[in-house]
Amino acid sequence: MNNPQLNRHGELQHLLTTEGLPAGILRDILDKAATFVDTGDGLEIKNVPLLNGRSVFNVFFENSTRTRTTFEIAAKRLSADVVNLNIGSSSTSKGETLLDTVDNLCAMHADMFVVRHAQSGAAHFIARHVAPEIHVINAGDGRHAHPTQALLDMFTIRHYKKEFHNLRVAIVGDVLHSRVARSQIHALTTLGVPEVRVIAPKTLLPTLVENLGVQVYHDMSLGLRDVDVVLMLRLQNERMQGAALPSAQEYFKYYGLTEEKLACAKPDAIVMHPGPMNRGIEIESSVADGSHSVILPQVTFGIAVRMAVMSMLAGVKV
Amino acid sequence: MNNPQLNRHGELQHLLTTEGLPAGILRDILDKAATFVDTGDGLEIKNVPLLNGRSVFNVFFENSTRTRTTFEIAAKRLSADVVNLNIGSSSTSKGETLLDTVDNLCAMHADMFVVRHAQSGAAHFIARHVAPEIHVINAGDGRHAHPTQALLDMFTIRHYKKEFHNLRVAIVGDVLHSRVARSQIHALTTLGVPEVRVIAPKTLLPTLVENLGVQVYHDMSLGLRDVDVVLMLRLQNERMQGAALPSAQEYFKYYGLTEEKLACAKPDAIVMHPGPMNRGIEIESSVADGSHSVILPQVTFGIAVRMAVMSMLAGVKV
Amino acid sequence: MNNPQLNRHGELQHLLTTEGLPAGILRDILDKAATFVDTGDGLEIKNVPLLNGRSVFNVFFENSTRTRTTFEIAAKRLSADVVNLNIGSSSTSKGETLLDTVDNLCAMHADMFVVRHAQSGAAHFIARHVAPEIHVINAGDGRHAHPTQALLDMFTIRHYKKEFHNLRVAIVGDVLHSRVARSQIHALTTLGVPEVRVIAPKTLLPTLVENLGVQVYHDMSLGLRDVDVVLMLRLQNERMQGAALPSAQEYFKYYGLTEEKLACAKPDAIVMHPGPMNRGIEIESSVADGSHSVILPQVTFGIAVRMAVMSMLAGVKV
Repeated sequence: MNNPQLNRHGELQHLLTTEGLPAGILRDILDKAATFVDTGDGLEIKNVPLLNGRSVFNVFFENSTRTRTTFEIAAKRLSADVVNLNIGSSSTSKGETLLDTVDNLCAMHADMFVVRHAQSGAAHFIARHVAPEIHVINAGDGRHAHPTQALLDMFTIRHYKKEFHNLRVAIVGDVLHSRVARSQIHALTTLGVPEVRVIAPKTLLPTLVENLGVQVYHDMSLGLRDVDVVLMLRLQNERMQGAALPSAQEYFKYYGLTEEKLACAKPDAIVMHPGPMNRGIEIESSVADGSHSVILPQVTFGIAVRMAVMSMLAGVKV
Repeated sequence: MNNPQLNRHGELQHLLTTEGLPAGILRDILDKAATFVDTGDGLEIKNVPLLNGRSVFNVFFENSTRTRTTFEIAAKRLSADVVNLNIGSSSTSKGETLLDTVDNLCAMHADMFVVRHAQSGAAHFIARHVAPEIHVINAGDGRHAHPTQALLDMFTIRHYKKEFHNLRVAIVGDVLHSRVARSQIHALTTLGVPEVRVIAPKTLLPTLVENLGVQVYHDMSLGLRDVDVVLMLRLQNERMQGAALPSAQEYFKYYGLTEEKLACAKPDAIVMHPGPMNRGIEIESSVADGSHSVILPQVTFGIAVRMAVMSMLAGVKV
Repeated sequence: MNNPQLNRHGELQHLLTTEGLPAGILRDILDKAATFVDTGDGLEIKNVPLLNGRSVFNVFFENSTRTRTTFEIAAKRLSADVVNLNIGSSSTSKGETLLDTVDNLCAMHADMFVVRHAQSGAAHFIARHVAPEIHVINAGDGRHAHPTQALLDMFTIRHYKKEFHNLRVAIVGDVLHSRVARSQIHALTTLGVPEVRVIAPKTLLPTLVENLGVQVYHDMSLGLRDVDVVLMLRLQNERMQGAALPSAQEYFKYYGLTEEKLACAKPDAIVMHPGPMNRGIEIESSVADGSHSVILPQVTFGIAVRMAVMSMLAGVKV
């Protein structure tokens, strides 16, 4: 089967999901991102003219100021022209089909689409449709994938742990509804992490999650034992109302990351979170702000990773 | 009577409506737009620094992501600074008058206003008010006019048909509520199209529409007979609820453009639509995507035409 | 006590309020702003590259198209990259704390925050939190302060009256709810205006307002007698519903600025208003548009003053 993300030379044509991406491509992205991170304080990002004259369209069918902003900053640091479209309140509500909207934007000479959509598969659908000189980046589609988030997580892990082949990584929380968790699992296993764990109540796990190559834990103290990396997931507040969760207090008691539970992990374990955080629900404040937390470097590295993806896509020959 | 769109040298000072614009000015705009369209594939648009250091304010009192985006792209390709203002949710709701809002934006040193407003005449009202060095482009006012849409339609017709003086053009649909139709009719007749037809049910036609120089048809097969150009109009969904239309199905049956009805037109007829399309209501999908359709080139040419209008206005001497 | 707005060299580190700012700093800002105002017509603003490569984040927790636009234009004229964030509809509604939102934006390498927030003290709170290389400008916080508005008012007064030490200034209207009035009073008294009056009904005055160094008038004709400058305040429409005001008509009768009442002021008095105006409620149209009004020059000078503040903050050494 054809990988819709790669062109016939095996180069990255679109970034839609970490699933099925070769380890070499993943490493290329991380290496490219490293060139945008200043070696001075390790966190400064440089401006470069790699996308000069190109038009990047941030097409958000689902509102997300934070994610849109990181892509906007990344594109501007590459000297691209950036157009933001909140389509949610626009043409689709006028009865236009998704593909007609996309065709129209292509006709305005978009070079790259950054797409956020509530429907799983929306970015794939668009990527299959556009002309070969146009590139699509999935900025989150339904419960399916959020590849740039997973890539910035991989960058952060490599920055602090150097290697993947000797790591034990735990993903904690609402795996069932999380596009971030899916993308993390595929990236981690592809990059050679030998042990990926998911820790969640049964009601917040997909059926047959083991088939993704992960070990399942329902007890957090057991699941965190001797891990190098803790990847916390955001708990969507709307889950609280449903039958999936008894209460925020009870969730925090069993699955919130406290200093006490974190003590089960390795002494030099790092703690990550994709944001926005619910302090006191999925993570204790002292852990979020503590010495193990690398949550804010994740955000900085996110700019570099998005610059890397955009510049690689822009450099592909049709 | 003075034409408020022209200065005392007969140059374009504002673009408010195609009504009353001399044929020479219309042709100048189309010729200028052609310079922004690459001769390679006929569809690539070039970047130029003609509006470097100028400030274009997109002042949208009525929300329209698509139209706002085309003007934003056109202005950025001319190297202008672009500021987007959705005024609907802003100062006017705080009790400020329209002219006070405009005066404030002028005091911030706007060079050009692109105005969309639900009230017919709003752009004229603003144009009469501002200082002579400030230019106003009407991006749609109520049921009155949408001149850049009509101009990009003219550009598209000329691109495919070369001349206007030998054409038969049909405008189909809700002429009554359509600012696009009004602007098209004035542009077509001014440019010398000898036969302009409107095809619509009686309930969707303005009274005395014949006075605009068009022939009226209620039967689509008769109206499309031997035409060179079919200009479809968008059917606003909210009309469905009213007394003007029995149902979407019945509308499509009588006034939807199908392959069968299109067969009445000339074999090389082109089909156009201002977007967003309601597939299956005013146009059949196979026609929208078919070989007669030039709907997507319209969008591309729309960027070039808006660049042409902006650069001509910016070049006017006070 | 430390002044949170100044660094240890006494330079402006943040602009949070005019309260406690030394007169020398206020004068420096006005002098710097004057360099951005063209000496030709006295109203043209020049473009300069002082913030080239810097990122200015307009972080608006409370919507304000007008204020956001003035800061956006000021930053763009300084060649900064500008990112607009309407946080009201974003992360904070997802349960994220204000400081987490700010930390995330810092991690994206913001150089400067322009903050509008409904809570008094929000800008101070953020300024205390961020790293020393990041600067915060308060664009209005609750009822507390709106320092750039007060500074542009001072610039306008100095432009027309040359000196502060010989002026009699009246502030008229809803002082109680006005962050503008508080910031004006502090700036005027610091700059040496010997007589600052507030004119308002008792229900729209803060308790102990005299302690701010102002004289209180409830009768407008008495309060305006022989003043050089009339600073009108906006009456928020929502106050009409409350017990604070009987009706708009009655308010206009007693506290609306009419030509008749303005005749009590000096013959060369200037009239100012921060906008948006409620014509016929706090000010008569003939006065707003009359020869004493400098309301539109205020807007122009506001761009220059914001450019001055931004360039001074950007020039501070950490």
